[in-house]
Amino acid sequence: MMELLTGLLLMVLSLCEAPAVPSLRLDVYVHATLELLALVMVAFELCMKLRWLGFHTFIRHKRTMVKTCVLLLQFVEAIVVLIRQTSHLRVTRALRPIFLVDCRYCGAVRRNLRQIFQSLPPFIDILLLLLFFMVIFAILGFCLFSPNTSDPYFNTLENSIVSLFVLVTTANFPDVMMPAYSRNRWSCVFFIVYLSIELYFIMNLLLAVVFDTFNGVEKMKFKSLLLHKRSAIDHAFQLLVSRQRPMGVSLKQFDGLMRFYRPRMSSRDRFLTYKALNTAGAPMLSLDDFYKFYEVIGLKWKARRSGEHWFDDLPHTTFLIFKGINLLVKSKAFQYTMYVVVAVNGVWILVETYMLNSGFSWSRMVPWSYIVFLTIYGVEVLLKITGLGPLAYFSSGWNLFDFSVTVFAFLGLIALAFDMEPFYFIVVLRPLQLLRLFKIKQRYRNVLDTMFELFPRMASLGLTLIIFYYSFAIVGMEFFADVVYPNCCNTSTVADSYRQINVTIGNRTVLDEGYYYLNNFNNILSSFVTLFELTVVNNWYITMEGVTSMTTHWSRLYFMTFYIVTMVVMTIIVAFILDAFVFRMNYSRKNKEPLLDPEDENGIVFEAEVSRDEALATLELYKKTCPGLSSLNSLQGVLLAMDRSGSSSLVYLGRRSRTKSDLSMKMYEEEIQEWYAEYSRENLPQSDRSLVERELDIPPPCHEHES
Amino acid sequence: MMELLTGLLLMVLSLCEAPAVPSLRLDVYVHATLELLALVMVAFELCMKLRWLGFHTFIRHKRTMVKTCVLLLQFVEAIVVLIRQTSHLRVTRALRPIFLVDCRYCGAVRRNLRQIFQSLPPFIDILLLLLFFMVIFAILGFCLFSPNTSDPYFNTLENSIVSLFVLVTTANFPDVMMPAYSRNRWSCVFFIVYLSIELYFIMNLLLAVVFDTFNGVEKMKFKSLLLHKRSAIDHAFQLLVSRQRPMGVSLKQFDGLMRFYRPRMSSRDRFLTYKALNTAGAPMLSLDDFYKFYEVIGLKWKARRSGEHWFDDLPHTTFLIFKGINLLVKSKAFQYTMYVVVAVNGVWILVETYMLNSGFSWSRMVPWSYIVFLTIYGVEVLLKITGLGPLAYFSSGWNLFDFSVTVFAFLGLIALAFDMEPFYFIVVLRPLQLLRLFKIKQRYRNVLDTMFELFPRMASLGLTLIIFYYSFAIVGMEFFADVVYPNCCNTSTVADSYRQINVTIGNRTVLDEGYYYLNNFNNILSSFVTLFELTVVNNWYITMEGVTSMTTHWSRLYFMTFYIVTMVVMTIIVAFILDAFVFRMNYSRKNKEPLLDPEDENGIVFEAEVSRDEALATLELYKKTCPGLSSLNSLQGVLLAMDRSGSSSLVYLGRRSRTKSDLSMKMYEEEIQEWYAEYSRENLPQSDRSLVERELDIPPPCHEHES
Repeated sequence: MMELLTGLLLMVLSLCEAPAVPSLRLDVYVHATLELLALVMVAFELCMKLRWLGFHTFIRHKRTMVKTCVLLLQFVEAIVVLIRQTSHLRVTRALRPIFLVDCRYCGAVRRNLRQIFQSLPPFIDILLLLLFFMVIFAILGFCLFSPNTSDPYFNTLENSIVSLFVLVTTANFPDVMMPAYSRNRWSCVFFIVYLSIELYFIMNLLLAVVFDTFNGVEKMKFKSLLLHKRSAIDHAFQLLVSRQRPMGVSLKQFDGLMRFYRPRMSSRDRFLTYKALNTAGAPMLSLDDFYKFYEVIGLKWKARRSGEHWFDDLPHTTFLIFKGINLLVKSKAFQYTMYVVVAVNGVWILVETYMLNSGFSWSRMVPWSYIVFLTIYGVEVLLKITGLGPLAYFSSGWNLFDFSVTVFAFLGLIALAFDMEPFYFIVVLRPLQLLRLFKIKQRYRNVLDTMFELFPRMASLGLTLIIFYYSFAIVGMEFFADVVYPNCCNTSTVADSYRQINVTIGNRTVLDEGYYYLNNFNNILSSFVTLFELTVVNNWYITMEGVTSMTTHWSRLYFMTFYIVTMVVMTIIVAFILDAFVFRMNYSRKNKEPLLDPEDENGIVFEAEVSRDEALATLELYKKTCPGLSSLNSLQGVLLAMDRSGSSSLVYLGRRSRTKSDLSMKMYEEEIQEWYAEYSRENLPQSDRSLVERELDIPPPCHEHES
Repeated sequence: MMELLTGLLLMVLSLCEAPAVPSLRLDVYVHATLELLALVMVAFELCMKLRWLGFHTFIRHKRTMVKTCVLLLQFVEAIVVLIRQTSHLRVTRALRPIFLVDCRYCGAVRRNLRQIFQSLPPFIDILLLLLFFMVIFAILGFCLFSPNTSDPYFNTLENSIVSLFVLVTTANFPDVMMPAYSRNRWSCVFFIVYLSIELYFIMNLLLAVVFDTFNGVEKMKFKSLLLHKRSAIDHAFQLLVSRQRPMGVSLKQFDGLMRFYRPRMSSRDRFLTYKALNTAGAPMLSLDDFYKFYEVIGLKWKARRSGEHWFDDLPHTTFLIFKGINLLVKSKAFQYTMYVVVAVNGVWILVETYMLNSGFSWSRMVPWSYIVFLTIYGVEVLLKITGLGPLAYFSSGWNLFDFSVTVFAFLGLIALAFDMEPFYFIVVLRPLQLLRLFKIKQRYRNVLDTMFELFPRMASLGLTLIIFYYSFAIVGMEFFADVVYPNCCNTSTVADSYRQINVTIGNRTVLDEGYYYLNNFNNILSSFVTLFELTVVNNWYITMEGVTSMTTHWSRLYFMTFYIVTMVVMTIIVAFILDAFVFRMNYSRKNKEPLLDPEDENGIVFEAEVSRDEALATLELYKKTCPGLSSLNSLQGVLLAMDRSGSSSLVYLGRRSRTKSDLSMKMYEEEIQEWYAEYSRENLPQSDRSLVERELDIPPPCHEHES
């Protein structure tokens, strides 16, 4: 946790350093001292690590070594800054994300980075092909078009290469062709051939190559993880079976394992896990039972509810009322009425907005329709909560979504009533309600569910992108801070976009406002926005040419490198989405069922029935092996619950959400059997195992001591 | 053939009709008469078809019915044009490609179109999601940004929707954000969220959905084709086995089948095909042998050469010289020397071009390096041709490429020598030689080979795109011909791009040259270029807004529809390339061999050994069954060849290139066995078979009579 905070602090510091966000500017000695403090903290952690790992391992752990070097460098620089009382050119700040990435919570980001590096070799091969064609066409283009003196895009070989590089991103497309095209109509053939080869063929090839590598890596990772788990289970089983009973693992030994493996698990859950594994009901766990260990280990256990509804225990009249509401809420008619209401609301909003004059002010008017629809939604939410019970209601993602949008709308109404101008955007979020309409069709439900499911992974990819952004932003700020401003760049071809001046056209005078000076590297926030614009690619060359005209030609290298880096990351994002969706569709086709049945979002469910005698016997056993009483409370709770309900046995349900690994298990069922067969022949060679450990990001042993 | 020509003629006509290409303008009565002629031809063909098919089948064949209706319409219109002596608004000309698509040679285009239509339903679903988010964000954007009067992008709801539509294509990206961004820096969040959802998520989803559908359709097509072939073989086998010999098919019966199935096949090839099927050497073909029918039917047979080299029969001294050349040419050293030469040439060209002044003229200078390198390449080509023999040399695609580039370079030199200015572009093609460098690495070889392999399919996709272009070009010309010109559109937001006027900036006067008036629909060639620019997407809204400002708001519908149509086609192209490459890579991974070994580009090879006795017996048999002597020449040729070489048997090799179907056979080996098992249980239900017939595009019976 401290690691994370230090890493974040270091990154946030660039908000306040030299080219700072105006409102957050800090004096040099303040931010330098803060930096030194953070660095000392990192150094302290590193020292701890050194002590636990031992010098030898420490030296050989590559990531830690890099971190140490960067730390030393930063230390020296921070002291220099403190002494000189002014910031020098500190490009090394771009290395700061290393401290953040190295912390425990950023495993996903590290995995992404590894995936990016793994996709690099084939990517670079194809990139070379792309660049090669680019150079050939640049030479051709220079030879063909440089005689035309009114063509600024091909007048030198350098310009020719730059123009064609930008053309691959399509950012300057018709413009780059126009001077040549106006001279000779057939010159469009050159551009059409170039774009067909580069944009429509080689760029797609890039995607194909990355997609293929990505697919392979995902499958390999799954395979090695699976085999690693199996070898761990084999090993554990060998250790657990005693000489007297070589056939299986008894509850006592299993309990011992669990108390070591999951110290915080309650005694009841340990017992239930054992029951879940022991499907045959035999006194011992066989190896085959034991193989399911990783499937049952994450289950959350709950007694199966005796009744169906949360209001079963209420008095009869109330029960009838709630039952009525429940039936109403669950009826198709109610659902479709709500869909109709939402649709009407959508059309209403559209028409209403269309009717508005453009100079209105939100704070003055609350249309009555807004209140009417909001009331309907509010009543719906209340009915649903009372009808289904709060727990069931909030366990569905869609309901949560409805609820939050409705609450936000209410907040917006209150904000309007109290004239709080800055909150008016909440009112504007109303149309999001319309998203509910997409629940009607299965495909949309699939798509939106996948969207939610992909979210964590997308977020980690986004974080990775932000880390790249950070590094590039620092470099950009060091070199290009304050180089562009209104009416700069008058010598470049993109002067228009930076011009802010009164222009006389014919006999009218208008203010020609070029906003591109806003796309600058003056502070880290502006840099991030500029980099996002560069990521979207359109018109990125205007920013590039503007900066280049105010600095040197070499600035183009920065922009081109950035383009290529984001291209890699973006291609991986595309490959990832493609992979996830194609996987889901294949899966649902293979298993002839929609992947997530809307009625059954429970994921994986295991069942375990506990009889009174069993519970008592287990309690006795536990009391013997582990005299501390406190840990047995949960097991005694089971007995108490049995007493209360008066039954002699209770059924417990263990649930967990379905992970991609579960899906993969089903998808690759046959191949998995092959892998297992192969594995039992080879018994997992050492090299493979070390790969697995890296994939799993198993922390070095010291962590256990730290926590 | 006549069908094809008529179809082409009809399409080419639009070069000369009303908004014609200036140099090809024809008088109304000329082109209208030509059109009538072509239409009469089409009508004639249709009548023939009606006669052969019978009225009932004719009526029920959907494609033919559509064609008939279009034909009638065109007929009436052409007559109207002839009478009025002027063209009216003839949007129906956009339907002309139907005549072309319907002809026999355009089967691939029809298949593409079918694939596009099959991908449509899921595509449209996702498109609706896209549009839905667009409308929601348009309402949000209108509410947020319309109070800012200097923001032209969101001042009405319509503008707001159009701006966000263009934003999905990124064509107006930083610009659309700038007015809001300059007012409030946090407004960038709106755009970032919008682009993240629409561009980076939903657009990728579109690709995923199309990719998935595409994959499924390809596999289904392969499956049904395979099963159809198997049922055809089963059927043929049942018909061929006689009552007396129910176990197999004899040569005589097989020969009868072949003479019906492939009338032009020579007697030798028929016999060799039988030998190739009859692997066991039994007197009869069993059903299992017979299943390979479709694999051997396309083989081209050739006697195996007794010697290795083409010059084996030459006198000894000459033989030694040629042998030396052969060894030299095949040596690694020679190859790498050539690579070095090519690399040096590449660097040379780059440096030379870099040194050139921009105002040079090609016709005046022939650099000596050009002549030196050309001589080296010429010598290399000559050595290779003599060393490997012309046949072996030209059978490799890479050699053909080398040869043609070298010949072109020579032509260019001659053109330079005779001062033929228009041919100077040939000289410029020199750098293409550098492509040879990519032969060194396996991955590039794979990529480039795949590129060549994909070429026919890509060409048919390109043709499909051109057909769409044609329809849109006609509609564009009818509505937007001559609406844009220099200095039009002064009322629109994109006036700058059309302005061609002296502008005073500060105290300088410059010619502000906006070239966008060139992107017009004034004739069909200009329209094609304009549509290509719209396909590339960048800055397409400038063309749209220009045209819209000179016509009505509804013009936008044309441009937006075009964008969506090209998006579908482009997505399918991407999906196709992805599919092809991922397939190849999976294939080579599965079979642990590079897909196309550079040394073994032979494809599929079958071998058949013919002994003298066999040949004689077969000749006797054929003479009995088919008294016409002319068809037996080829078999007698075999005997003659045996006499000449003096051996008692000859080995023949049958070759054909590997098709995707062969690869699929290997890829889906296991699944195919399942399909077969399933098929033999169900014996192919009728519905499936009719699907197959449609897939195969089996021509209606009449075609056989026509030819």
